[in-house]
Amino acid sequence: MRKALPTAGHPARAVIMGFAATVAVGTILLMLPITAENGQATDFVTALFTATSAVCITGLIVVDTSGHWSTFGEITILVLIQIGGLGIMTVASLMVLLVSRRFGLRMQLSAQRETKSLDLGEVRDVVRRIVLISITVEVIVATVFTVRLMSGYDYGFGDALYSGVFHGISAYNNAGFSLYSDSMERFVSDPWISLAVIIAVIIGGLGFPVLFELGRRLRGKIHWSMHSKITLLTTGVLLVVGFTYITINEWQNADTMGGLGVPGKLLAGLFAATMPRSAGFNSVPTGELESSTLLVTDVLMFIGGGSASTAAGIKVTTFALLAFVILAEIRGEPTVHVMGRRLAATVQRQALTVALLAVALVMLTTITMLSISEHPLDEVLFESVSAVATVGLSTGITADLPPGMHVMMSILMFIGRLGPITLATALALRDRPRRYELPEERPIVG
Amino acid sequence: MRKALPTAGHPARAVIMGFAATVAVGTILLMLPITAENGQATDFVTALFTATSAVCITGLIVVDTSGHWSTFGEITILVLIQIGGLGIMTVASLMVLLVSRRFGLRMQLSAQRETKSLDLGEVRDVVRRIVLISITVEVIVATVFTVRLMSGYDYGFGDALYSGVFHGISAYNNAGFSLYSDSMERFVSDPWISLAVIIAVIIGGLGFPVLFELGRRLRGKIHWSMHSKITLLTTGVLLVVGFTYITINEWQNADTMGGLGVPGKLLAGLFAATMPRSAGFNSVPTGELESSTLLVTDVLMFIGGGSASTAAGIKVTTFALLAFVILAEIRGEPTVHVMGRRLAATVQRQALTVALLAVALVMLTTITMLSISEHPLDEVLFESVSAVATVGLSTGITADLPPGMHVMMSILMFIGRLGPITLATALALRDRPRRYELPEERPIVG
Ligand SMILES: [K+]
Ligand SMILES: [K+]
Repeated sequence: MRKALPTAGHPARAVIMGFAATVAVGTILLMLPITAENGQATDFVTALFTATSAVCITGLIVVDTSGHWSTFGEITILVLIQIGGLGIMTVASLMVLLVSRRFGLRMQLSAQRETKSLDLGEVRDVVRRIVLISITVEVIVATVFTVRLMSGYDYGFGDALYSGVFHGISAYNNAGFSLYSDSMERFVSDPWISLAVIIAVIIGGLGFPVLFELGRRLRGKIHWSMHSKITLLTTGVLLVVGFTYITINEWQNADTMGGLGVPGKLLAGLFAATMPRSAGFNSVPTGELESSTLLVTDVLMFIGGGSASTAAGIKVTTFALLAFVILAEIRGEPTVHVMGRRLAATVQRQALTVALLAVALVMLTTITMLSISEHPLDEVLFESVSAVATVGLSTGITADLPPGMHVMMSILMFIGRLGPITLATALALRDRPRRYELPEERPIVG
Repeated sequence: MRKALPTAGHPARAVIMGFAATVAVGTILLMLPITAENGQATDFVTALFTATSAVCITGLIVVDTSGHWSTFGEITILVLIQIGGLGIMTVASLMVLLVSRRFGLRMQLSAQRETKSLDLGEVRDVVRRIVLISITVEVIVATVFTVRLMSGYDYGFGDALYSGVFHGISAYNNAGFSLYSDSMERFVSDPWISLAVIIAVIIGGLGFPVLFELGRRLRGKIHWSMHSKITLLTTGVLLVVGFTYITINEWQNADTMGGLGVPGKLLAGLFAATMPRSAGFNSVPTGELESSTLLVTDVLMFIGGGSASTAAGIKVTTFALLAFVILAEIRGEPTVHVMGRRLAATVQRQALTVALLAVALVMLTTITMLSISEHPLDEVLFESVSAVATVGLSTGITADLPPGMHVMMSILMFIGRLGPITLATALALRDRPRRYELPEERPIVG
């Protein structure tokens, strides 16, 4: 039985308020005539949807980014993405620290000496490191992008730099916003651009705790934590499985990668396998993918990326833990062991809760969207998972949906972004003791 | 730590062999010229699919039942259904008893004095009671059917009785086979036939442990077990939710219940809400249902019916237990309480395992079927869930699939029928002690 912290419920509430306020400010800015290309005020629902999509680093759009918004509008979106991305990484990392302290576990996320509670110096140190990592990756990607646009596509320096910075930030933050109306389709066979985006997305999607350990590991300082091992392993497995399936399945699809050479197919396959976790760029037209590829992408999007990262979904650790629980159950082992460690029983229940609530959310959304729209299940399910997992991939139906659905999807993106982390934290912090124990009973399962 | 029974793995294996042997005999019989209406030998895949569908009481068909098969063929199918239905209820009940004994729990399924192990007298008593209940319900339904066909549809006694017996057995066993090529569509507004089928399906789908307790309860003898309370409550909730959603959603669909009067709509809605658990009859054309109704039906089929019943799916208890676990987790309670009892921790993991493996099976099947066929996701998902949950509802694509898919679906029906019960039993019986405990660790969830 653990004692309850007096501030148990507060951090999650503060985070939700902070993100909501950022969305509100973003919505107001995006309603101003100055943020629109045509100088007219943008309607409330479009502004709300775009601001939510940017702050929640989703990338779903209802109006073309460079077509509808002015340069000031684009920069507004970029700032919202950067705030959202840094915000979610910081908040998630601090919540992880909070939960670790609560359970007396050591979880090094800063160079500060670890104390019983979170002190301001430590918070500042974590924020500083997150900003440092983020800006470093963003600058590298922006540089590759800029140089490549100038050398390969005859861009002037100013245009190349603007595009480089925009897509560097958008890629690292898994935001999926693009200045090109075809997302990254024009770069489908360009290894420089494609690989820069892929690497930025993967790094952004690993999560700060893993990045921090990677950094210390490179200097030979620590052992891997179970969390980092699971994250890296599962990310790798999902990439390989997704890449293999998607590449084979789309190999001869004339509307996607059928017309490309073998290197182009492999590059496009890797791109398509990386983006569901959860960047949302596409280098082949999403709406033209095979129905089975869409379903596999649904699964990848649902799983998402690493904890305390710019990716969303139920997270690769949640997915992997459930697999380990099932494995232990099939082997008939009373406790779950993962890589030489015993898995805390409470974590198992938390993983189950996060995963099944996400399934319920996706099902309810899909059923609602199916009832309202005339689009087929594969497209509706895809859009629903893309919103909940804040991926931003789209078969193209989002823009066609009625305003009421846009408001609903805005709410979904918000829940999808903040739900798993605040839920998991709240669950971890709110364990409550019972005074007495009731007699045990075993209903029949299966 | 519990001691392992020496016979732990055996019962499941014997059951699987028994069912496989019955399917094999059925396949051979259905390949004979005498079982076909046209006197020609039926091909292997069609015979295998039909025999599996009958023994696994699924009801999916690749050839029209009364059109393709002779009367001898129809009776062969009926016998396979009866063997499959009685077999699954008996086997499941005995496994439940075995597991209960293993954990020192009292689980009354017979009037015999309970002993430490299962003795032959008790097994005989359980079988006797199951046969008694089954035949009683089947006779009542057959009688209602026969009288109604004679009084309302000008059937002669012989034809009416044959149809009554066939559909009585098919309904109680949740088999879904019908002598009518439109299943029950001709009876959509007939309350006698519809309600008889609905009631038979619900009773068959509750499961013997619940029926046995209901019988004792009527004689005022015992308290409800947690299992019976959960089964009855969840069955009721799913019926009400399914009925409400389907009736409202299909109210104006001209291809399903749009043309019916209000009583007809309500009856058709109740019929459509009952059949996914897991009878597989339809009184409105399944292929014409709204896409959203199909998805809701998918969910209902996936959940299925009661344990040790003629229904399949992951079972209503599994579904309800997971909901209780989530509820406890959200409330921050360290142990899960259900209706005044503490839920055994091992049961939670079993429920998780059964449910998630079923999800994985459905996803893999759907992805495979999508890759091979050209049918849209809603139809493929529906057929896949229908096979795995051995429901037998069909949007009509099953007959069109290639023979290879028919073999795969035969295997699926077999796994769907025997998987959950043998898996759950094996899991419950195979808990294995660990010699030492590894240090605990908490990865980040969500
Ligand atoms: K995204
Ligand atoms: K059935």
